[in-house]
Amino acid sequence: MNPNSAEGRLERLAALPLRENLRGASPYGAPQIDVPVQLNVNENTHPLPAEVRAAILAGVEGTLETLNRYPDREFTTLRAALARYLGHGLDADHLWAANGSNEVLQQILQAFGGPGRTLMSFPPTYSMYPLLAAGTDTRYVAGTRGPDFTLRPDDAAAQVREQAPDVVIVCTPNNPTGTATGLDVIEAVYAATEATRSIVVVDEAYAEFAHTGTASALELLPGRPRLVISRTMSKAFGMAGTRLGYLAAAPEVTDALRLVRLPYHLSAVTQAVALAALVHADALLATVEDIKAQRDRIVTGLDRLGLTPTPSDANFVLFGPLADPTAVWHGLLDAGVIIRDIGLRGRLRVSAGTEAETTAFLDRMVELAAAGVAIPAP
Amino acid sequence: MNPNSAEGRLERLAALPLRENLRGASPYGAPQIDVPVQLNVNENTHPLPAEVRAAILAGVEGTLETLNRYPDREFTTLRAALARYLGHGLDADHLWAANGSNEVLQQILQAFGGPGRTLMSFPPTYSMYPLLAAGTDTRYVAGTRGPDFTLRPDDAAAQVREQAPDVVIVCTPNNPTGTATGLDVIEAVYAATEATRSIVVVDEAYAEFAHTGTASALELLPGRPRLVISRTMSKAFGMAGTRLGYLAAAPEVTDALRLVRLPYHLSAVTQAVALAALVHADALLATVEDIKAQRDRIVTGLDRLGLTPTPSDANFVLFGPLADPTAVWHGLLDAGVIIRDIGLRGRLRVSAGTEAETTAFLDRMVELAAAGVAIPAP
Repeated sequence: MNPNSAEGRLERLAALPLRENLRGASPYGAPQIDVPVQLNVNENTHPLPAEVRAAILAGVEGTLETLNRYPDREFTTLRAALARYLGHGLDADHLWAANGSNEVLQQILQAFGGPGRTLMSFPPTYSMYPLLAAGTDTRYVAGTRGPDFTLRPDDAAAQVREQAPDVVIVCTPNNPTGTATGLDVIEAVYAATEATRSIVVVDEAYAEFAHTGTASALELLPGRPRLVISRTMSKAFGMAGTRLGYLAAAPEVTDALRLVRLPYHLSAVTQAVALAALVHADALLATVEDIKAQRDRIVTGLDRLGLTPTPSDANFVLFGPLADPTAVWHGLLDAGVIIRDIGLRGRLRVSAGTEAETTAFLDRMVELAAAGVAIPAP
Repeated sequence: MNPNSAEGRLERLAALPLRENLRGASPYGAPQIDVPVQLNVNENTHPLPAEVRAAILAGVEGTLETLNRYPDREFTTLRAALARYLGHGLDADHLWAANGSNEVLQQILQAFGGPGRTLMSFPPTYSMYPLLAAGTDTRYVAGTRGPDFTLRPDDAAAQVREQAPDVVIVCTPNNPTGTATGLDVIEAVYAATEATRSIVVVDEAYAEFAHTGTASALELLPGRPRLVISRTMSKAFGMAGTRLGYLAAAPEVTDALRLVRLPYHLSAVTQAVALAALVHADALLATVEDIKAQRDRIVTGLDRLGLTPTPSDANFVLFGPLADPTAVWHGLLDAGVIIRDIGLRGRLRVSAGTEAETTAFLDRMVELAAAGVAIPAP
C-alpha cells in the first residue's frame, strides 16, 4: 500500500494509541466547497460595513505594541462590553467568553460534566452537543421533541426529571430546525432540576434573528444561579471568522469556568476585534432585519413549492421531507448554491443569505421543482 | 454574609454542581500586576519591530472582507508556513496548531489520554501538565529528575518502563528550571515506550533560546510515528498576545487531533497574524541572541551573589534555594520588578528581559544581597 495514500494514513492512524471512543470517528465539519452562493453554515453572508472594518483594524493596531505580552487573562473590558450589549442589568461579573461557543460549552462540560455525568439535549438539535459530550467523557442522553420539533413545558420537564442529567442544553431558536422555545419551557426545565441541581444552558446562538417580540432567557437569570445563556458573535454579528462565543450567568458560574479555562485562552487580538465590533453593534446588526425578511421569503417560497418548510426564528430554514434530498443538494450545487444536508432523514437546511443569494436559491428550487427533482417525499 | 463579597461568591460556587476534582481548586495563573519591569511569565519583553507590526496589520486587513465567514478549518496556509519555519523536511501534513500550546497539549490528551489513561512528566516542570491531565480526566504520574534537575537516558527510560504511561511529556529546555535534555534522553524514552505504544511529546516551547549547537528533537521525527514536538510563538517570536501553539508529528497524529479539535478553533485573524509573523521570522527572532546574552548575565550575576542559578537554555533562570524567597520577591516588587514564585521550595524564577530590564533586576538583587535579604538558605 502507498504509505501516502488516504488508506495508508487511515491505517497508520489506527496504529496509534487513540482513545477507544474515537476509533472509526470522522472529523466534524461541513464540506468546505468554494461556490458563489454559500448558504450551508448559517453565516451572516453580508460583509462587514466599512466603518466596522476600520474600527476593527484600529483596535488590532492598538494591541500590537504589547503583542509580545500575554493578554489580559480576565478580558475585563470585553466582558463589560458584552454585558452592555446584552443589557438586562448584567455586568462584567456575569459574562464569560471563549473561542467560539463550542469552547464555551466545552468549558461548561469540563466544569459540570465529565465521567459519571450526563448531558441531555433535545434532537434534532445542534450536532456538536453529543460530540462535546464525547470529548469530555460526559454521557449523552437524547430527549425528544414533538412531531413539529417544538418542546412543550410539561413534556420537557418530565423528560428532564426522568433522565436527571447533570447538564441540560436547550437550543432556541433551535439549530437545525429554527424552532423557537418559549420561556415557559425554560422555566419548567429549570424547575425540574431543583432536586438534581443541574446546570441548564439555553443556547441562544441565533437569538437576534427571532421574530420581533420574542423574549430572551436572559429575563430568567435573576434568582436562577444554575441557568446559563450562551450566545455568539458568529451569526447576527457577522463575525464567524473571529470565533467569539460568550455566556451570561451568575458570577459563580464564571468562577467555575475559571477553574477549567486554559490560561490566556482569548488572544489580545480576539479581544480587540470583538470589542471594536461591539462598539459598532448597531451597524453590524443593521443587516439582521433584511436576513429575517429573506428567511421569511424562503419559508414562503418553499411552502409555495409544497416542500414543507419548518417555521423558523433563526437565519435558516429546514425543509422536507423530500423524495430525493441528495438530488436536490446536488442540483443546487450545480447552480453554484451550497446548502446543508444535516443528516436528518429527507430534510435539508438552507441559510438565509443576501437578497440576491436568496433569490439564486429560490430560483433554482423552482427549476428543480419543475424538473421533478425537488418534490415532497411520498 | 454580603452576597457580593469574595466569601459570598466562593460559597455560591460551592453550591454549584462542580465536578468533584475541581472542588477547592484555584484558577491557574501568575498574578497580573502592572509594574515597570515584568519578568514573571517568560515573555520576550522586546516589542515587535515596526515592519512586523505593519505586516500583521496588513494581514488582518486582508481577513476583514470575509470575516463574516468561518475561517479555513484546516488553516492550510499557516501549517505550510510553520513547516517552512521548522525545516527538517517537514510539510503542512506534519503540522498542527491551536490557541496556545496549552490547547495543543489538551487536544493530545483528548485524543490519547482520558479516563483510565495516564500522563507522565518529570517535575519540577511546566505546572500546566497536571492541570491539563485533570481537565481531561487523565491520571497524572510524576517522574523524578536528578538533584541538578537533569534527566539521564537510562533513568528516564526506566521510570517510563515502570509507569507505562499512555502519554509522556519531556519539556526541554525545561520550565521552570531551564535545563536542556539531550536527544539521547528522548531516544531512550521513545524506545522505552515501544511495548506500550505511548505518545511521547517533547515540549520545545523555549527551543530557540538554547545554546548554539543544541539539537532539536525534530531530528528524531523520521521513523517515530508516536513522537510529537510541541512549539509556540509566545516566547522567542514575541507573540504571547497572539496565542499560537503548534506541533510537528507524523501526519496520522494530526489526523487524530482532527477528531477532537473544536471546529474552526483557529480564528481567521489568528491565522493571519501568525502567518504575517512567520514571513518576518528573521526580524522577530533578531532579539533572541540579546535575550540569551541577558540570560547568561543573570546566571553570572546571581552566581557572583552566591545565589545558585541553575544552568539555563531558556529565556529564564531559576535560582536558590534562598533563605527567604518571599522577602526577595517583595523586595524586587518594591523596586518595580516582578518575577515568579513557582512554588518550588526556596527558589524563584526570573525571565531574561531587555538589557535595561535585566540590569534593573540585577541591580536590585545586589541591593537585596547587601541588605542581607537575598541570601542563600542555610
